[in-house]
Amino acid sequence: MHRYRSHTCGALRASDVGTTARLSGWCHRIRDHGGVLFVDLRDHYGLTQVVVDPDSPAFKLAESVRAEWVIRVDGRVRLRPAGTENPELPTGQVEMYATEIEVLGPAAELPMPVFGDVEYPEETRLRYRFLDLRREKLHKNIMTRGAIIDSMRAKMKGQGFFEFQTPILTASSPEGARDFLVPSRLHPGKFYALPQAPQQYKQLIMMSGFDRYFQIAPCFRDEDPRADRLPGEFYQLDLEMSFVEQEDIFAAVEPVITGVFEQFADGKPVTKNWPRIPYATAMQKYGTDKPDLRNPIEMQDVSEHFRGSGFKVFARMLEDPKNRVWAIPGKHKSANEVGGTGPIARAFCDRMNSWAQGEGQPGLGYIYWAVPETIDIVRARGGDMDRRDFAKGPLANNVGPDRTEAIRLQLGLDFGDAAFFVAGNPEKFVRFAGLARTRVGEELKLVDHDRFELAWIVDFPFYEWSEDDKKVDFSHNPFSMPQGGLEALNTQDPLTIKAFQYDIACNGFEIASGGIRNHRPEAMVKAFEIAGYDEATVQERFGGLYRAFQYGAPPHGGMAAGVDRIVMLLCGTTNLREISIFPMNQQAQDILMGAPNEASPKQLRELHIRTNLPEK
Amino acid sequence: MHRYRSHTCGALRASDVGTTARLSGWCHRIRDHGGVLFVDLRDHYGLTQVVVDPDSPAFKLAESVRAEWVIRVDGRVRLRPAGTENPELPTGQVEMYATEIEVLGPAAELPMPVFGDVEYPEETRLRYRFLDLRREKLHKNIMTRGAIIDSMRAKMKGQGFFEFQTPILTASSPEGARDFLVPSRLHPGKFYALPQAPQQYKQLIMMSGFDRYFQIAPCFRDEDPRADRLPGEFYQLDLEMSFVEQEDIFAAVEPVITGVFEQFADGKPVTKNWPRIPYATAMQKYGTDKPDLRNPIEMQDVSEHFRGSGFKVFARMLEDPKNRVWAIPGKHKSANEVGGTGPIARAFCDRMNSWAQGEGQPGLGYIYWAVPETIDIVRARGGDMDRRDFAKGPLANNVGPDRTEAIRLQLGLDFGDAAFFVAGNPEKFVRFAGLARTRVGEELKLVDHDRFELAWIVDFPFYEWSEDDKKVDFSHNPFSMPQGGLEALNTQDPLTIKAFQYDIACNGFEIASGGIRNHRPEAMVKAFEIAGYDEATVQERFGGLYRAFQYGAPPHGGMAAGVDRIVMLLCGTTNLREISIFPMNQQAQDILMGAPNEASPKQLRELHIRTNLPEK
Repeated sequence: MHRYRSHTCGALRASDVGTTARLSGWCHRIRDHGGVLFVDLRDHYGLTQVVVDPDSPAFKLAESVRAEWVIRVDGRVRLRPAGTENPELPTGQVEMYATEIEVLGPAAELPMPVFGDVEYPEETRLRYRFLDLRREKLHKNIMTRGAIIDSMRAKMKGQGFFEFQTPILTASSPEGARDFLVPSRLHPGKFYALPQAPQQYKQLIMMSGFDRYFQIAPCFRDEDPRADRLPGEFYQLDLEMSFVEQEDIFAAVEPVITGVFEQFADGKPVTKNWPRIPYATAMQKYGTDKPDLRNPIEMQDVSEHFRGSGFKVFARMLEDPKNRVWAIPGKHKSANEVGGTGPIARAFCDRMNSWAQGEGQPGLGYIYWAVPETIDIVRARGGDMDRRDFAKGPLANNVGPDRTEAIRLQLGLDFGDAAFFVAGNPEKFVRFAGLARTRVGEELKLVDHDRFELAWIVDFPFYEWSEDDKKVDFSHNPFSMPQGGLEALNTQDPLTIKAFQYDIACNGFEIASGGIRNHRPEAMVKAFEIAGYDEATVQERFGGLYRAFQYGAPPHGGMAAGVDRIVMLLCGTTNLREISIFPMNQQAQDILMGAPNEASPKQLRELHIRTNLPEK
Repeated sequence: MHRYRSHTCGALRASDVGTTARLSGWCHRIRDHGGVLFVDLRDHYGLTQVVVDPDSPAFKLAESVRAEWVIRVDGRVRLRPAGTENPELPTGQVEMYATEIEVLGPAAELPMPVFGDVEYPEETRLRYRFLDLRREKLHKNIMTRGAIIDSMRAKMKGQGFFEFQTPILTASSPEGARDFLVPSRLHPGKFYALPQAPQQYKQLIMMSGFDRYFQIAPCFRDEDPRADRLPGEFYQLDLEMSFVEQEDIFAAVEPVITGVFEQFADGKPVTKNWPRIPYATAMQKYGTDKPDLRNPIEMQDVSEHFRGSGFKVFARMLEDPKNRVWAIPGKHKSANEVGGTGPIARAFCDRMNSWAQGEGQPGLGYIYWAVPETIDIVRARGGDMDRRDFAKGPLANNVGPDRTEAIRLQLGLDFGDAAFFVAGNPEKFVRFAGLARTRVGEELKLVDHDRFELAWIVDFPFYEWSEDDKKVDFSHNPFSMPQGGLEALNTQDPLTIKAFQYDIACNGFEIASGGIRNHRPEAMVKAFEIAGYDEATVQERFGGLYRAFQYGAPPHGGMAAGVDRIVMLLCGTTNLREISIFPMNQQAQDILMGAPNEASPKQLRELHIRTNLPEK
């Protein structure tokens, strides 16, 4: 018999009854029922109930065993007594009567239990990650993560992509975030950088004549901790294709991502034939370039109804042509529907107004259309009721019944519905408008959480105005091809130029981003010139890539999808540390391994650096 | 029609004749045959011959096109004229008559050509890696590398392993080589380290109850450049299993590695049922723990024949019990066999002797047995010839015919064969003896280069004597389980303890290394204590792992195989830069991207470091 096991803890079935078996695993739970010990023995594959009674030669040792000890058990497989079967467990028909036990790895008193669902502080969970990872949910998440990555890989190969490994010790290349640097021992005073993304390498792979690249790529950004970001390193599904236009990328990627989501969505619906939403439309309808399309609310511009109206605050604002009034239409869901909140009344609107003030806004203007009471319906007998009579709220009073009705008609609202208004310069209020849309949708229970809504966001602006630097700068990726190419760069107002650049939005998250690249060196130089960088700077910063462009560059484009974020969505968690095996804490420390830590003077000397500590 | 291509350059066949097609690719080779231009258009998938004559509207543009320009070509597919087909090319039956050409990416004058096999200096090849990667052989190697990794992955999954990603920003842990350090911005004066191997993490994964881990893992060692090592980073097929003994690892790994080799060996034989060679035996027979078993020579201890013999140099040496005489038997291969060198004569032995002197040795003693000439055979008619009469060389004369004959019989040699001798303390001469064995085997053409000989090397010593530190130290991996466990540590002379530790040797390279781990904290503490490290040091250096051992550790073990080296062997190259897509040069520089390079004062300030340059 094998030294440690004849079966895993998930293997025994009724057909094994009567045989002798050997199991090894962790003591998941130990119960003493009137002198008989029941040990749930656990390994990666499952749980088996082990029984030891005082007649067994293993009894004395079994009494000393505690939770999370690793033991080997020999014994006879037998049916559980009638009525004690556990249909939840694949091994639930049987139990093992232990005749011999060997302790393989005892455990000290546990700082946190493995059995059960009790929450523990993150500090404890990270310090004892090996215990946390034994717990059912996290263990399962990590396995799901692996399965998702496998699935991505298989689907990418199915689309004709090849996997490459790009270097991790590379050159610093300012792509937006801060680099991690690695001092060179052999080249005093010089540093490698860890890649923020393999952007330049994947483009170089296209210059090298490989046609379809992908990689499950580790990326590194030295950014300040944020809740929705793992400090330090993260993984992206990175891809690039030659001889393609935007449509080709979409055609290659959409089935991969849809397929992965469908495979792991646990039956939840996943968008097929993703909508393509221009950036400007997304901002106007959803107030964000990563809209949550599970929320059916689409904002509308209702400026015309307020221009010159009796609501002076908005009317005066609209005298500035930059300003607008947007409406967030809130259509109530009938109380008869599952999760329906019923008609909207003043209390709801006031709550939204208070929430807006909590967000630092002066408030949130609204109109709601009250639900007719029986007496109204009686009065209206013989003719339709005029919705004008039911519009409520200070705004309605100020703009008057005709304009209010026009707003209602534009927004398609009716009795029991409401509209909320944000006004001013859209560039400034758009973020808040997006939040308000989300809030209204969530509060009215309009958001169907049990689905995955995917969309392409397209036509990103190539440049933006940098208030900090008082100059035009790249709004996203400087390597993207401007729509219209060199011609557009030479002739258009830079701030009106769009890029062949796109994101994938899912349920309010940006899960991928990409673009068709600018593969023409003269267009690249011009694009950088507009953003204030001369050719020498381009050569210095992106020398390898710039050089490659001179020697036969194919048109190409690609994308990078956030593996961690996709796994997070599919595991139904909002914390990236729940889907990463050994994450750092929010202070960018690995408290399990003790990183970062001090270096020895010898190490620093060899690396030609000294520490330069801030004054205390 | 697609903007860039209706077919790849490897797709057109005779069945496409008469259709219109669109191709995009690089101009691989351009020939002008009497005013008609022939352009071999190349992409990742193949080559297609494009023809343009002066009647074509594309002719004028075609005349301006140069090697490695990227173009789009529209045209008609037609059969090549009879007699001009190219059976080597899948598209060789057809050609494309170009009617339209568009330049997608022109190329400046090339620093090195893509077409052809001319060798270029490594500096040029690395700086213009994107051109080098377009060349047939390197392009193919990189694709083979990817296919080998895919195959490893598939086979590991077939064995029930799961893939995990372990952190790359982690803690410094002295595992033999120097760490790359990464200064922490958020924790002044502290550093992350890049993992030399995910050793501790994979063991922690076993503590976390995952049963079979693997990873195609990037590893980082800041070592001085060496020919058979990539500077900086390399990949290993890393694996770990719980509840296993050494045999289980062998049973899991052997089919994976054999399978990968068979798949990519191009028909060359690959060892099945690998021999298991104890370390001590390998050293004695082959003079190395990574023997090239394609070489049939096995060394033997022939000390007894020299003890008290007339060859005083050896006889006196053998008075010291530490000393030995080893023989390298050289059996000649008949000149009638393919590659056979024929009988060994004095000239060969003298050449070996000179080679040994070139290696810094005093020389290489030998005996050879001359081939009988016709006259001898006539004389010997009626009886067997006495080999004693044919032994030649100074050693034979000194030790006398009986001892010489005893040596011959032990080594199984005959007419035309030779034996070479190394004497002294085997610890000191073993490396040279191994080289001599290789040299003799190669010179006698005994090594069959067209095969892959794999073997397990087992029973490595757990400790060794460190001459530098004048103390016992770990000979390989301190995390290995000593054979005999805690008992052996408590009772045996440390230098006699073997470890459950093993390598895989292939054709003279170590391609993998592993061990059963020491999962008992008390044994771990004792093992380190013997090597002079107290428990506090163990806790400080390996805190995470040591802590995990306290809370229910399963018996476990694993291995790591060198991906780059395996790919190198299978691609039939001896240079790791031929199988890595963007390697650094031997000075650990990426001259394509310009790494390492200077950091800005702002970067250094943020990282709380200053450079500390050596004096010029």
